[in-house]
Amino acid sequence: MEFKRLSHEVFYTGRVFDLIVERIEYPSGAQAVREIARHPGGAATVPVTDDGHVLLVRQMRFPLGRYITEIPAGKLSPGEDPALAAARELAEETGYDARRLEKLATIYTSPGFCDEQLHLYLGRGLVERPEGPRREEGEQSMTLESVPLAEALHNALSGTYQDAKTILGLLLAERLLSGGSL
Amino acid sequence: MEFKRLSHEVFYTGRVFDLIVERIEYPSGAQAVREIARHPGGAATVPVTDDGHVLLVRQMRFPLGRYITEIPAGKLSPGEDPALAAARELAEETGYDARRLEKLATIYTSPGFCDEQLHLYLGRGLVERPEGPRREEGEQSMTLESVPLAEALHNALSGTYQDAKTILGLLLAERLLSGGSL
Repeated sequence: MEFKRLSHEVFYTGRVFDLIVERIEYPSGAQAVREIARHPGGAATVPVTDDGHVLLVRQMRFPLGRYITEIPAGKLSPGEDPALAAARELAEETGYDARRLEKLATIYTSPGFCDEQLHLYLGRGLVERPEGPRREEGEQSMTLESVPLAEALHNALSGTYQDAKTILGLLLAERLLSGGSL
Repeated sequence: MEFKRLSHEVFYTGRVFDLIVERIEYPSGAQAVREIARHPGGAATVPVTDDGHVLLVRQMRFPLGRYITEIPAGKLSPGEDPALAAARELAEETGYDARRLEKLATIYTSPGFCDEQLHLYLGRGLVERPEGPRREEGEQSMTLESVPLAEALHNALSGTYQDAKTILGLLLAERLLSGGSL
């Protein structure tokens, strides 16, 4: 380890992430402050229907101040299995259950400042819930989009979709569905 | 817009990101607090040598407490052109200049809580700088890895690489290099 941690402070405890501030010392003796966004991690699903459509959600994202289109996703509850979290968020946001979830990847979204780890799945065997979606108050702006897979891939590659997990999830799902292994 | 912003506070001003705390009100009258990590954005390059190797950097990432392998990347300076930032970070971290940068994608890394936008490029026509890398004090742990493109792709798909921009960048670079358009 090429530095010493001199202090560690939980500066803010938030709804989605906590802010940690650390003071460190390099071997040269120089000191520096590092801030870290501590995130519980998340899970997301690329849900593909039997007739080859992807279910996406369009919602207002506060940090961006605009609507964007994403695959269904959400934070892990403490101790929650990532696959169950993915299934829960899929059901809440789209109103669909997946009979089969296959792991696509586990990724760090922005490891330079944040410990968020995101678990990506392909969801197949989709079945609509009679009761529909159960969205939280902050998700009332959310709408469901059903897009043919080829069109969704085009949108991912052409810049129409800009969310990293959505673009990566669609590329990985295409590889798996076209018979390639990951 | 389905909410009213009641307050907006810069809670912490950091080296990499600021913490913004907002209080909002939904149409129901319910109030909520939202924290946002405000990030200047970044740029990253998939550098591919004339003989088909990818240049990657391995470094300690404080938020994870461990070393991971990534494509060269860094934050935008205020007002900086993303392509120039990508070229600057490539030179600083690897000691190579790219004669050609081609845009791969512009992505939001984690739009649920952070406004970070990341610009991804493919770098070709790599030329080593006589003076080598110029790494900052916090980057002294960084080492350069030169990996055949097919092996890097395997590492991206098998879970060996876990950084989102690295996996996505390699998949997009492969598409472009194999003659497909994006």
